Order: sequence, then structure tokens, then C-alpha cells
Amino acid sequence: MNVFHYTTVTQKDAGPQTSKTNVRWLITKELGAKNFAMRLFEIQPKGYTPLHSHDWEHEIFILEGEGILVSGEKELRFQAGDVVFIPPNELHQMKNNGSKTCKIICLIPYKEN
Amino acid sequence: MNVFHYTTVTQKDAGPQTSKTNVRWLITKELGAKNFAMRLFEIQPKGYTPLHSHDWEHEIFILEGEGILVSGEKELRFQAGDVVFIPPNELHQMKNNGSKTCKIICLIPYKEN
Repeated sequence: MNVFHYTTVTQKDAGPQTSKTNVRWLITKELGAKNFAMRLFEIQPKGYTPLHSHDWEHEIFILEGEGILVSGEKELRFQAGDVVFIPPNELHQMKNNGSKTCKIICLIPYKEN
Repeated sequence: MNVFHYTTVTQKDAGPQTSKTNVRWLITKELGAKNFAMRLFEIQPKGYTPLHSHDWEHEIFILEGEGILVSGEKELRFQAGDVVFIPPNELHQMKNNGSKTCKIICLIPYKEN
């Protein structure tokens, strides 16, 4: 059993095509998780993740902040306490259009669907 | 894509061997999630989950509150912002020994390890 505060995990830039976004990989294969990984993203005001799609799903819980989820021509608002499910192969992007940092738990599978 | 506040999901008693504990199944197979499920537990002060083990893991994020994780003779404190990984087959129990409701995100796999 492992118990640790999320801030003890080093945060890294979330990579190309993101802006003002960092990620902490909280629970991974290295910890023994064989089926899915837990990450915590922080998106600063005016920051965003890439508009992209992939063949795996996202299971998301919004911890803090607010913003917009873009999916093609559709835009949906999100706020703290919201749950988001993005199925495989669906175009998606998260934008922080609020005034405080968005903190988001986002889980992805290790196995193929 | 689905976006909804967690409070829009009906909460249910978490079942036998729990005390003062409710659960909301937030993301499930019914929503299209094939690999893992997201649940949100609320454990009221003095409440607890069963001391048990099973052959699947838990990936947990503590949203609010504090308490104790029991694993055999070991006890670990947890608080808001903590991440918990419980590997398969490890004995575990969560107890709320604080003064406010614990809110906990807990994910489990649908597939076998």
C-alpha cells in the first residue's frame, strides 16, 4: 500500500502542443499498477491541452478551476466537481478560460480496448 | 463526451460491512468505459469501509477529509490531496476518524490482471 501527497510527485511540462500545462504521473506501472494510470494535470489560466484524438479513453475528475472542453464544433463548460468521460477516438481539448489554475485528475488505460 | 457534476449521480449505501458510507458510481460500463470504473465514496465521521482484500487494485485520490488506512497491523493516515495505491490481494480498510465527511475517488479495473 502506498500513501503520498500528490505534491510529492515531481511535475513536468505536459509536452508538445500544450500550453501552460504541467503533469504529475501519480500512479503508474512503476508503482505496480497494471491496468490504468492516474495523472494530475494543472492548466494555468489561458493554458490548454492539444486538440487531438487517440484510441484510448479518458476518465477525468475536475478538482479545481473551470474551463472549456472542445470536441470538434462542440464546446462544453466544466467546473470543479465535474466528471468527464471521453471515449476512444473522440476529438478533445481542454482550455482554461478561468482566472485560477485548473487541477484535473485524468486516468488512462494501459491495456488496449 | 460526457460532462456532469458528481452530485447528479444518485448515491447509494456502500453495502454490507460498511458503516456511514455511501457510493456514487460515476463512470461505468453503461457510459462506455470498458477498462475501469470511477466511483466516489463519502465516509461520514466514525464511518468505515470493510476490512477486506480482493484480487483487484484500488487507485484512490482523497478529495476532502482525513482518516486512517488499515492494512493488517499497519495503519497509515490519509488526508485531502493524498494518493493511495492498494495492490491486489492486500488487506485494507478506510476509517474516517476526523470531524468532516471524507470524499474519496476510487477506481477499479474491469479486466483481470
